[in-house]
Amino acid sequence: MTQPRPHGSVRPGGRTARTRIAVLAAVLEELEHDEFARLTVERIARRSGVHAATIRRRWQTVEGVLCDLLAERSRTTIPVPDTGAFRSDLRALAESIAAFHGVPRNEHLLSSVVAAAARDPRADTVLREAFGERLRYVSTLVQRAVERGELPPETDGEEVIAALGAPLYYRLLIVRRPLDDQLVHTAAEAAYHAAVAGVFTRA
Amino acid sequence: MTQPRPHGSVRPGGRTARTRIAVLAAVLEELEHDEFARLTVERIARRSGVHAATIRRRWQTVEGVLCDLLAERSRTTIPVPDTGAFRSDLRALAESIAAFHGVPRNEHLLSSVVAAAARDPRADTVLREAFGERLRYVSTLVQRAVERGELPPETDGEEVIAALGAPLYYRLLIVRRPLDDQLVHTAAEAAYHAAVAGVFTRA
Repeated sequence: MTQPRPHGSVRPGGRTARTRIAVLAAVLEELEHDEFARLTVERIARRSGVHAATIRRRWQTVEGVLCDLLAERSRTTIPVPDTGAFRSDLRALAESIAAFHGVPRNEHLLSSVVAAAARDPRADTVLREAFGERLRYVSTLVQRAVERGELPPETDGEEVIAALGAPLYYRLLIVRRPLDDQLVHTAAEAAYHAAVAGVFTRA
Repeated sequence: MTQPRPHGSVRPGGRTARTRIAVLAAVLEELEHDEFARLTVERIARRSGVHAATIRRRWQTVEGVLCDLLAERSRTTIPVPDTGAFRSDLRALAESIAAFHGVPRNEHLLSSVVAAAARDPRADTVLREAFGERLRYVSTLVQRAVERGELPPETDGEEVIAALGAPLYYRLLIVRRPLDDQLVHTAAEAAYHAAVAGVFTRA
């Protein structure tokens, strides 16, 4: 993990890092109890043992903490596949995304963050940055496919990854039904066929 | 427009229909003033001249009204294209969706509705039903393509339409950047190539 962190920290293992871990862990526990709607900075402070003022200084709002948590969990639990072939990389990535959001707590977190971004411009910025960073990072698998000669040279990796993920997030946020194997299959295959056909080459 | 209405109305032009129009128009005006966060049933009642009790009986909450408004506006402003060819139908549909959400008020409405669905199970149900109905209706263009022999016979029309729309909604809700011509192009072309390759045929 060599990606920049969204909230300007710091030495891993330092006090700031420990504070962050304590706060994010506390929020995860709160989400388990399905009390997100009543989640407050004070409640997070009580459960984490971190002062409310410290939480406010670093994340400003509950929404800020939620966005950081989603970014962190995506980063650590959805690996970038490297199976040796583009098609199976896409399939593996779609499976990981589906497995991640198959956990009710994570799906709940996603809805909460998207809802927060609709209300709060700071949460909007955090979400945009977190997903932008994530897209750039995961798109390295597309770069490898280009280098292996599986895709046209000018293929835009971020567009491919967005195309793969889009049907999964659309299902969760708009259609509002659970992800399933069929959707994992069609999302990966649709992105594959479109990329190979040159749909995502830069103009 | 022969689709069923989501809230169990009625003769067009009847009192119930007029009430609905007044309420939806009032909410649209409220959204123009960018005061969604403070939108209440009382505020809608004041602007529409419809009793708050009537609004509550029919839509229960502000979220219910917002979902109905989104469904209604999508229905009336995003036509189902019929250009004579599958590829240009997809392109036309992507353009209409982008034009719809290019209006700030509509984009605002979408975020608000998705946020509402995250908090309120009733809004969740309304959103799911509205988009489900919409997918079924728009997927008639896929059926026509199958009949013309442009697509494999077992193509699932709703999956094709979801695949076309997904990158647009993903951009708006997750990536949080505006829709543009490039995305309209890639969304339509990706859905086209995947459908023609047989990705969306029923198992």
